[in-house]
Amino acid sequence: MEAWFFENQTGNFGIKIRIKSVLFHEFSDYQEITVYDTQEFGKTLVLDNAVMFTEKNEFVYHEMLSLVPLFSHKNPERILIIGGGDGGVVRECLKNPFVRHIDLVEIDKKVVDVSKEFFPEIACRLEDERVRILAEDGIEFVKRINASGREDEKYDVLLVDSTDPVGPAEGLFRRDFYEDASGALKDDGIFTAQTESPFFNGKLIRDIGRVTKEIYAKSSLYCASIPVYPSGLWSFMAGSKKYDTNVINESYKNFDFGRLGADLKYYSPEIHSSSSVLPNFIKEILK
Amino acid sequence: MEAWFFENQTGNFGIKIRIKSVLFHEFSDYQEITVYDTQEFGKTLVLDNAVMFTEKNEFVYHEMLSLVPLFSHKNPERILIIGGGDGGVVRECLKNPFVRHIDLVEIDKKVVDVSKEFFPEIACRLEDERVRILAEDGIEFVKRINASGREDEKYDVLLVDSTDPVGPAEGLFRRDFYEDASGALKDDGIFTAQTESPFFNGKLIRDIGRVTKEIYAKSSLYCASIPVYPSGLWSFMAGSKKYDTNVINESYKNFDFGRLGADLKYYSPEIHSSSSVLPNFIKEILK
Repeated sequence: MEAWFFENQTGNFGIKIRIKSVLFHEFSDYQEITVYDTQEFGKTLVLDNAVMFTEKNEFVYHEMLSLVPLFSHKNPERILIIGGGDGGVVRECLKNPFVRHIDLVEIDKKVVDVSKEFFPEIACRLEDERVRILAEDGIEFVKRINASGREDEKYDVLLVDSTDPVGPAEGLFRRDFYEDASGALKDDGIFTAQTESPFFNGKLIRDIGRVTKEIYAKSSLYCASIPVYPSGLWSFMAGSKKYDTNVINESYKNFDFGRLGADLKYYSPEIHSSSSVLPNFIKEILK
Repeated sequence: MEAWFFENQTGNFGIKIRIKSVLFHEFSDYQEITVYDTQEFGKTLVLDNAVMFTEKNEFVYHEMLSLVPLFSHKNPERILIIGGGDGGVVRECLKNPFVRHIDLVEIDKKVVDVSKEFFPEIACRLEDERVRILAEDGIEFVKRINASGREDEKYDVLLVDSTDPVGPAEGLFRRDFYEDASGALKDDGIFTAQTESPFFNGKLIRDIGRVTKEIYAKSSLYCASIPVYPSGLWSFMAGSKKYDTNVINESYKNFDFGRLGADLKYYSPEIHSSSSVLPNFIKEILK
């Protein structure tokens, strides 16, 4: 069958994935949501015609966005996730032994519903009693936490699992949000966001790098290989008020990563450190 | 202008690149050779409808295939390159201070000519007096060196810069070739080959990993991010008779990598080591 999904990842470069069927297609209040079944990658979630993840490779993005900051923190008890309605980041966060509470602030409730229906292996921990799902705007939420000044509402780790910086996610790449996010974190908090491709989005990474460096005591970019994302190389920006995010915190020195076994397909203590060793061309971007 | 080049990288996944013009198109004795000018990546060399490199990103592949093995070797004086008629690997090898002689064995002379005409920044060192270009079959060449038993003809480093394991390059992925290659290396020689994508070519990597482990005292897989190659993540298999290829040899402890400056866009001593820190799913492949 010659049916293909096409994504223009830049104006001049794109990918195509052969599809077996369209499992779901609907316009929510915020975006176009499609689920394809594909030969190469299994079921695939597409928002506004951009691949969010595929069943086969989602482990890379979800493990790396979540586990690097969480295992850099001494005892990450309270986690805030902006976006991430599919549940992949929640699933990963719950692998950290300290996590006691996760607020998942997903603007589009429909993404949660679709993920529960079509991606049970990804949404599997959304019903965990430690998880609270809030269907609201993450930008407004973070602003409110910051303005409230209530210490008990602040977070240990804030993760931004957003779509690209166009449409609903645009504000998540703005300075205002970065400042509010810092205010929503405890004194030893860690902020981490997905920040697109070093090959295609150098200017964005440079701008976000500068803001992060201004706001946080420590900042670090790290990368991971994600086949269906533009260029196959993806970046994450971490800002930390205290901990070094390039190494695992010593509080995990007796933690048995082997126990997580097949649940860690990409992340390991060694990858934690090597993912922030950057090729020279990326170092140039950050100068 | 809506003109696009399409490459099916697997039967079910592909890329498309918008083209400005077709600069060259010809069938050589061995393959179809095309040079496109593209919006996103500049000039692009395509063999048998597979992208070999683009002007914009060729540095990753050429630096990483060449510099990791060369800077693992104490004093790599004699280098053999199989394939690589474009000259990119030659250009990189000549950045190592010990290199005195390079034999470039490229089966298709036309690739050399096309590269000299359209990619002068890549072919720029093919006229260096240390470089000898031989237009012959690399498999036969290596067999002959091995059979001759002449120590002075053997090499310090052998690099396989091949196309995919279909068509003319197929034999370069076979056990016979790996054994002959070992025989063409000195007692402290290093072999390195491009070995495709860990996401798409797991079986190939596993098979080659086993052969390499049998033949060489030390073997190591390392990876680099190459946007236009399938999945964006590429692997290289190194087999070494003596040296550890995961770290820079101590003979370079006073070598000034900063001197190479902008000529190193990807490789650095830190990347040398981190490129062999593998995600768990790749470690699984190699088990």
